[in-house]
Amino acid sequence: MSSSTLVIPNGDATIRQPAPAPSPGRFAEVYSEVQTHRLKHSLPLPSVLKSPFKIVEGPPSTAAGNPDEIAKLFPNVFGQPSSMLVPSDSAALASNEKLKIGVVLSGGQAPGGHNVISGIFDYLQDRVKGSTLYGFKGGPAGIMRCKFVELTPDYIYPYRNQGGFDMIRSGRDKIETPEQFKQAEETVLKLDLDGLVVIGGDDSNTNACLLAENFRAKNMKTRVLGCPKTIDGDLKCKEVPASFGFDTACKIYAEMIGNVMTDARSTGKYYHFVRLMGRAASHITLECALQTHPNITIIGEEVAAKKQTLKNVTDYITDIICRRAELGYNYGVILVPEGLIDFIPEVQQLIAELNEILAHDVVDEGGLWKKNLQHQSQLLFEFLPRAIQEQLLLERDPHGNVQVAKIETEKMLIQMVETELEKRKQEGTYKGEFKGQSHFFGYEGRCGLPTNFDSTYCYALGYGAAALLHFGKTGLISSVGNLAAPVEEWTVGGTALTSLMDVERRHGKFKPVIKKAMVELDGAPFRKFASMREEWAYKNRYISPGPVQFIGPHSDDINHTLLLELGAQA
Amino acid sequence: MSSSTLVIPNGDATIRQPAPAPSPGRFAEVYSEVQTHRLKHSLPLPSVLKSPFKIVEGPPSTAAGNPDEIAKLFPNVFGQPSSMLVPSDSAALASNEKLKIGVVLSGGQAPGGHNVISGIFDYLQDRVKGSTLYGFKGGPAGIMRCKFVELTPDYIYPYRNQGGFDMIRSGRDKIETPEQFKQAEETVLKLDLDGLVVIGGDDSNTNACLLAENFRAKNMKTRVLGCPKTIDGDLKCKEVPASFGFDTACKIYAEMIGNVMTDARSTGKYYHFVRLMGRAASHITLECALQTHPNITIIGEEVAAKKQTLKNVTDYITDIICRRAELGYNYGVILVPEGLIDFIPEVQQLIAELNEILAHDVVDEGGLWKKNLQHQSQLLFEFLPRAIQEQLLLERDPHGNVQVAKIETEKMLIQMVETELEKRKQEGTYKGEFKGQSHFFGYEGRCGLPTNFDSTYCYALGYGAAALLHFGKTGLISSVGNLAAPVEEWTVGGTALTSLMDVERRHGKFKPVIKKAMVELDGAPFRKFASMREEWAYKNRYISPGPVQFIGPHSDDINHTLLLELGAQA
Repeated sequence: MSSSTLVIPNGDATIRQPAPAPSPGRFAEVYSEVQTHRLKHSLPLPSVLKSPFKIVEGPPSTAAGNPDEIAKLFPNVFGQPSSMLVPSDSAALASNEKLKIGVVLSGGQAPGGHNVISGIFDYLQDRVKGSTLYGFKGGPAGIMRCKFVELTPDYIYPYRNQGGFDMIRSGRDKIETPEQFKQAEETVLKLDLDGLVVIGGDDSNTNACLLAENFRAKNMKTRVLGCPKTIDGDLKCKEVPASFGFDTACKIYAEMIGNVMTDARSTGKYYHFVRLMGRAASHITLECALQTHPNITIIGEEVAAKKQTLKNVTDYITDIICRRAELGYNYGVILVPEGLIDFIPEVQQLIAELNEILAHDVVDEGGLWKKNLQHQSQLLFEFLPRAIQEQLLLERDPHGNVQVAKIETEKMLIQMVETELEKRKQEGTYKGEFKGQSHFFGYEGRCGLPTNFDSTYCYALGYGAAALLHFGKTGLISSVGNLAAPVEEWTVGGTALTSLMDVERRHGKFKPVIKKAMVELDGAPFRKFASMREEWAYKNRYISPGPVQFIGPHSDDINHTLLLELGAQA
Repeated sequence: MSSSTLVIPNGDATIRQPAPAPSPGRFAEVYSEVQTHRLKHSLPLPSVLKSPFKIVEGPPSTAAGNPDEIAKLFPNVFGQPSSMLVPSDSAALASNEKLKIGVVLSGGQAPGGHNVISGIFDYLQDRVKGSTLYGFKGGPAGIMRCKFVELTPDYIYPYRNQGGFDMIRSGRDKIETPEQFKQAEETVLKLDLDGLVVIGGDDSNTNACLLAENFRAKNMKTRVLGCPKTIDGDLKCKEVPASFGFDTACKIYAEMIGNVMTDARSTGKYYHFVRLMGRAASHITLECALQTHPNITIIGEEVAAKKQTLKNVTDYITDIICRRAELGYNYGVILVPEGLIDFIPEVQQLIAELNEILAHDVVDEGGLWKKNLQHQSQLLFEFLPRAIQEQLLLERDPHGNVQVAKIETEKMLIQMVETELEKRKQEGTYKGEFKGQSHFFGYEGRCGLPTNFDSTYCYALGYGAAALLHFGKTGLISSVGNLAAPVEEWTVGGTALTSLMDVERRHGKFKPVIKKAMVELDGAPFRKFASMREEWAYKNRYISPGPVQFIGPHSDDINHTLLLELGAQA
């Protein structure tokens, strides 16, 4: 395929028309109709990216916390201003020299990753003809081991608007030790890279900034840009209003939740307990609640803020179930974030104690070991269903620690609610019938076909990242804003990665971190939820969002969280 | 809403335009965009239903087996010919008298049930103005207890093209005893019913035929028609090519499977074991395999035909995993039908023995009770993972029987495959890495928004059922055929329910049954699968069908199973 069939000259059309694929490199002849249709889907660009542009910079930036420490950790890139792309009269403000750019996917999959790469690629095709894009294979390890593939139109095309990260795969390795930084340097020198785009979550973007700092400190030409990726939605700030993948994942989960709601209402006899992905933050659960109106939703951040115990959470659920039974409803839908038990202080305490005990003591069948638990932890342990007790004692990670992530919270809650309801039945305060059904919606969501929003957003993120590299920028995260407006009006720019950072003290040293954005209890999405949950609890306001539609009047709609956050900002 | 806004005069338009809903009775103001869009979706009718028609009948029918016994059980309705609606010159061959019709939903939900009711209702509006439609609430129990609601345009409209059975709910009761038949008679007499439409699976349609026989035997005017419903796809025959709901459910499951496949390919480190609904037959699993091309698919009917053991199944999976590891693939997707272990003769034997032992003996901790198992069953029991052993011993239904349905087959297989792989690793014949992830796709599928196919098919089934009642027919199942052709060319008629029947001997008596349609190993869908599975096993031909689309070029496509079966018939 010649590049002329793929590329529309600068500013020459409102919408990019992809070329037909002569022979998809991905897996010829095994695309579904919908996949094929998505392959041909045109990606609109923000207006500013469709004509000549220049960069304007804001004031120097600071850090999210401890700016002095961040400045010390990043002497070469700290304090950079934000960059914003704005229309320009003259066509060529950036160099015309061909570029060599690398791109890497880091961490768990999120729908849209392939479009970020397509965006970078198309920028190079459109604006710096003859440039080269390398994809590092298998995540940051691909950088360290210099494993890469040169990305060509034929190679990239079949992944356009498709889910997954399989174009170049991802990985969870980090570039951390001096030796690993050395390897990264060798790779970028070997490939003579002008730039590197790191597509990842909070850790990966911190890593991107460390690389940017390191390369600049050594006077190397390689610039590093980050891109905000995570379905969990916990990498965001004012300038970076969303991480990609969140929109698609939530819509897929919401489809399933809506179906389960219809099922609950039709049979009238099941309580569906749905655990949703999101270990650190509860954004996915909150968004799904706003989309579907479940009877009960547990938000981890609220549990933590109110210092609730597991018994509190159980009672909260049980109280609503009892009240609903009085209203004649012996069914319902309950959403729970994957990371719920991490939010409960007493559970964290118990697990910390268990980790100590498992490391040093013998866990005897008779249970004498329990005397080593503090009183509060003993009580909590006894409160847990037997299956969960066993899971806590038996399943450990390679470091010997309890595997909290493996605990099936939804099943645990069903058992605890069942026990509590049984008690109330004995006491005569509950006369209903309870049947719990457990669900975990996880892997299904993170590799779906990206929604129109994620497809377009990612394409702009990639296109913008390449532009920033072209203009010599480093240590920024690609920032596309004004997302509630039509795509034409979206803003494109970059934000200093250091401005997102704070430090944490680990092993006596300051470590830079991009703090995860948690659900804010005074934020617009939570407040909207909080104002409606009482009604949802007792009045069955279920909404069934249905399957994601790619064409039709509302196929470009964005998620509630983003819309509410943008509305609150406006 | 006046009926004139809802109804388009006979033969006056090609497509029915539903009226706008002034105030949806279902749950005002809480429809998603997609739900609202579906509400407005126009339902096309087969041509024959759009103009005057008459009925032509075929030759007398017989039974699927033991016609003499069926004839004895149904002396009044046995042997009825098939009825086919054909265009007619004269407008009014059926009576102009207003009709009173009842409708009931029976058994588990299937997408499209609401449209069957809409079809019945619209027929009455179009052709027998002033007629009344009653919906019996909560399934057959609603008939016995005379619990019903009169269905009006306002009541029905909000359920158009929507999933679930919540318009009048369903139930699993059966009308079986003389007392229950008496109650049914009283209800239809009280409501002065001309007809009753039973929407259900094989058992419910058998029940419909018994009611038809009973009412006719007593010279009552009430006719009874059946409609083929079940997502499992196991109620079908030549004249009834599909049960409704199967198309939608499979497409929803296939969306999720496709996503999980992309995940598997992207991470390269998980084997996803997916259990799919379908206890008696494996049609859903087969259809999902044809839609998505998994590496391994277990079809229960094949396991039964080949008299495979659990060890055989485990080895089959393990062999492919080992071979894939040699090819460099330590990931994959495996589909398993919910009813798998019911298909394995040795498991059935073990469970039968366990039921006996649990009923009469003490299950001692030391395991002495196992001596009561036959040798083969003892070996099998020891072969099972401990968690499954415990499930078999502890979880019993109200009759004290082992709850086979509760066994998480996908988790059991993961554990058994893990054990076998560990063994092979020790022996040096396997060098890969194995991580199993389990999924159960069940409730998410049976209450989704019906696809275009199920929406249209159900509407025609309902419209046709009402027509047959209008023409005085009873004891038939609504039959819509020629489904691979455009809707205009679909055929509409009715098939004698007795022609689908055979007898089973229970408690010394002959009982009529509609035999479940199992996956036929020499049928076109299985043969296509069998011819491709070797390639799918090792070459990763994954297809991601994506979310169901309601508009666009392929949104009317029908499922592979139906297409292949129709092709094979043609």
